Amino acid sequence: MDNVKVLYFPLKAMAEGIRLILAYVGQDFEYVRISEEEWPSVKPNTPFGQVPVIEINGKRHAQTSSILRYLGKKHGLGGNNLEEDFEIDQVVDFFNDLRLRAASLHYEKDENKKAVLKQELYNNYFPEMFTRLNDIITRNNGYMAVGKLTWADFMFAGMYERIKVMLAMPDLDEKYPKFKKLEQTVLNLPKVKEYCANEPEYN
Amino acid sequence: MDNVKVLYFPLKAMAEGIRLILAYVGQDFEYVRISEEEWPSVKPNTPFGQVPVIEINGKRHAQTSSILRYLGKKHGLGGNNLEEDFEIDQVVDFFNDLRLRAASLHYEKDENKKAVLKQELYNNYFPEMFTRLNDIITRNNGYMAVGKLTWADFMFAGMYERIKVMLAMPDLDEKYPKFKKLEQTVLNLPKVKEYCANEPEYN
Repeated sequence: MDNVKVLYFPLKAMAEGIRLILAYVGQDFEYVRISEEEWPSVKPNTPFGQVPVIEINGKRHAQTSSILRYLGKKHGLGGNNLEEDFEIDQVVDFFNDLRLRAASLHYEKDENKKAVLKQELYNNYFPEMFTRLNDIITRNNGYMAVGKLTWADFMFAGMYERIKVMLAMPDLDEKYPKFKKLEQTVLNLPKVKEYCANEPEYN
Repeated sequence: MDNVKVLYFPLKAMAEGIRLILAYVGQDFEYVRISEEEWPSVKPNTPFGQVPVIEINGKRHAQTSSILRYLGKKHGLGGNNLEEDFEIDQVVDFFNDLRLRAASLHYEKDENKKAVLKQELYNNYFPEMFTRLNDIITRNNGYMAVGKLTWADFMFAGMYERIKVMLAMPDLDEKYPKFKKLEQTVLNLPKVKEYCANEPEYN
């Protein structure tokens, strides 16, 4: 079996999907928590000056979507052909767009600007895009793409709570019930459930 | 041969890499320029409310990276195995991070904030990240990944001039000579060169 480490801050955020998929496929891994103090010494030894990083048999790789795609395809959680992979990739990119907009709002420090941005996104972006995502999940039997469980669903399940926090939208579950249902579908997969039950407390 | 259309605004920006790779693989396509006035009526009929969109035999797909990956893998411009695909994907995600930072600076409307952001990015982000990208290209025989021409290089070549404009850094060519060289490697591929010579004027 591969020797696998996941390097990240003591947060769920961008690394949680990776940990969930590793748990699901039964790949043991060490979760290396990096503190703020350690980060400057770790950073130069990452591929792009960022975490999460996955180290597989001593080689380091980065970028959450790329890591999930690789692990997914390696373990039968990709598409069955180029067209199905294309569909999965598109939905993941779309979901990343949503995540980045949520983050742009969450991390805006200027309160006036934040209020303007919030109104703009809440009026002209999120309702349409969430409706589109809800429709996509509905069309795909409750999954992100190609009508079945793929690596895209681990991306979603790992980020969903974080997006709710970033958006300060605790009612997202009620407004788009397919979202919570998909998150729960992944979190209730037996190996994932077992992993989560033993996961340390962090956000 | 597939019937292919590319829908985008009358700009290079996010669609140029798609057009370059289609030209390279010899796939004829119609470039459908969408005006500002037409956009509201086109938007609902796109997968995610965004362009560029590629229409292949009547079916519409979106998201630049996903489109390039699909076309690349279909036409022998991907990796030779999962590990090589993983390497290509990572570099593309990294390049997209750089592009998004450049865009965040370019589109910031508040002049004071822009000045602060510019100083922050120019001091603490771009020099390190451009050096990393320059090193990556050097290690890969002048290409983005796996030491040979892949779809990632079309992404780079299609965006490079735009990034220079967004960053207001006309001296990027001199500072990181591998960048201009890679762009020119792609733009000088005979079929790409022929396409570009007949391409309409836009930015």
